[in-house]
Amino acid sequence: AGPGRAMRAAGAARGAALAAAAVTAVALAVAAWRRARPVREVLFFPSQPCCIEALLAEAAEPGEPARPCPCPLPSGDTALSRLVRRLLSARRSLDLCLFSFSCPQLARAVQLLHRRGVRVRLVTDAQYMGLHGSQIGRLRRAGIQVRHDQHSGYMHHKFAIVDRRMLITGSLNWTTQAIQSNRENVLVVEDAEYVKAFQDEFERIWEEYNPASYIFFP
Amino acid sequence: AGPGRAMRAAGAARGAALAAAAVTAVALAVAAWRRARPVREVLFFPSQPCCIEALLAEAAEPGEPARPCPCPLPSGDTALSRLVRRLLSARRSLDLCLFSFSCPQLARAVQLLHRRGVRVRLVTDAQYMGLHGSQIGRLRRAGIQVRHDQHSGYMHHKFAIVDRRMLITGSLNWTTQAIQSNRENVLVVEDAEYVKAFQDEFERIWEEYNPASYIFFP
Repeated sequence: AGPGRAMRAAGAARGAALAAAAVTAVALAVAAWRRARPVREVLFFPSQPCCIEALLAEAAEPGEPARPCPCPLPSGDTALSRLVRRLLSARRSLDLCLFSFSCPQLARAVQLLHRRGVRVRLVTDAQYMGLHGSQIGRLRRAGIQVRHDQHSGYMHHKFAIVDRRMLITGSLNWTTQAIQSNRENVLVVEDAEYVKAFQDEFERIWEEYNPASYIFFP
Repeated sequence: AGPGRAMRAAGAARGAALAAAAVTAVALAVAAWRRARPVREVLFFPSQPCCIEALLAEAAEPGEPARPCPCPLPSGDTALSRLVRRLLSARRSLDLCLFSFSCPQLARAVQLLHRRGVRVRLVTDAQYMGLHGSQIGRLRRAGIQVRHDQHSGYMHHKFAIVDRRMLITGSLNWTTQAIQSNRENVLVVEDAEYVKAFQDEFERIWEEYNPASYIFFP
C-alpha cells in the first residue's frame, strides 16, 4: 500500500499542478482579451456627486491601501468616476482640447498625471480661461503647457486623447455645473480612425496657437 | 454567308447581353457594399460659408434639374454641406436633441424633412429656445413637435439620430456663429451600440419633458 499511496499522492500533485496551470492560462487569456478589446463607452450626465479620493490615491500610489476619506459623498460607480478612471489610465500623454475647464476634481486628476510624468498639453478658449473658477491658472502654475486662441470665435471642442489611443469627446464642458446639473454626453472610443482625426485636429490647433505666432496690435 | 452572319449577329447579341448583365451585377454589388459599409465620418468646423440650395432642391424634388441659385456663395463640399446631406438622408425619422438651434439653413433642412413625411421630434433647452434668432418657434409653427426642460440645469446635448440608424453628435450647437466661427467637431456614426445608447437617452428625455408632466408653481 506504501508505494501505491505515494503514486496516488504524486498523481494528485500532478493533477493539482495541471489544474493550476489551466486556471492561470484561462486568466491570462481573459486578461489578454480584455486588453485587446477596444474600449467603447457612452457616459451620460448629470452625474451623482461622488468622492474620487480613492481613485486619485490609487493612481498616486498604486497598491497602497486607500485611506478612508472623511467626506460624506459616496464613492460609487458614476459617470464622473468613470470619466476620471479613463483619464487616470494615461501612461505617456494626455492631450486636452477644452472650451471651459473649471471642475477642481478633474483638474486634480490632470495635475496628478503631470506629476507622474505623463506629457500633458492643454488647448483652451481665451475668453473662458479667465473666468471665475477656471482651473487654467492652477494648471499653468503646476507647470502644464497651455495654449489658447486669439480669435473672436470660440475654441469650443471638448475632447481629450489618452496615450494617442483613446478619444474622450462629447458635449460636456469640464465644469462642476455641467457634470452635476446638465444633460450631457461623453463618448469614449478606442478606434484608430477616429483617434487619428482628432489627434490631427489637436496638432493643427496646438501649432496655430503657438505663442510664437501671436499677433499683437499696437 | 447568310446563316453565318445571322449566327455571328446572335453571338454578338448574346455577348452584349452578357456584358450588360456583368456590368449590372458589378454595379449592384458596389451599391450593396456601399449600403452595407457603415458611415464613419468626422466633421471639423468652422466651415466655409456655402450655398445649400441645390441640396435642398434635390431633396425636395429628386431628379428635377436644379435651378441655379443667384447667391454669391460657393456650393462646394464643406463641413456644413456634409452635415446637411446626412440629415437629408432621413426617410422615416429624425430625433433632434439640441441645446441651441438658430441656424436658418439647418432649420430649412429639418422643415423640408417634416414636409416630406419624416417624423421629426425635437428636444431643446428652455432657456435658449426663446433667444433672438432661435428657430424653435418657426419649426413649431410648421407643425414639428418640440419639447423642452423645466430645470435650472441645461439640456446641453447636441445630437441627432437619423432613421434610428445614424448618430450625429459632437460639440456643435446648430447656430450660424458656431458653424462659421468656432472650432467644433461632429462625429457621424452608423453603429448600433452607440445609436442605441443615444436613442434610449432621447426617449428618456422625450418622456421626461412631456408637457403632461409639467409642474406649475402658484
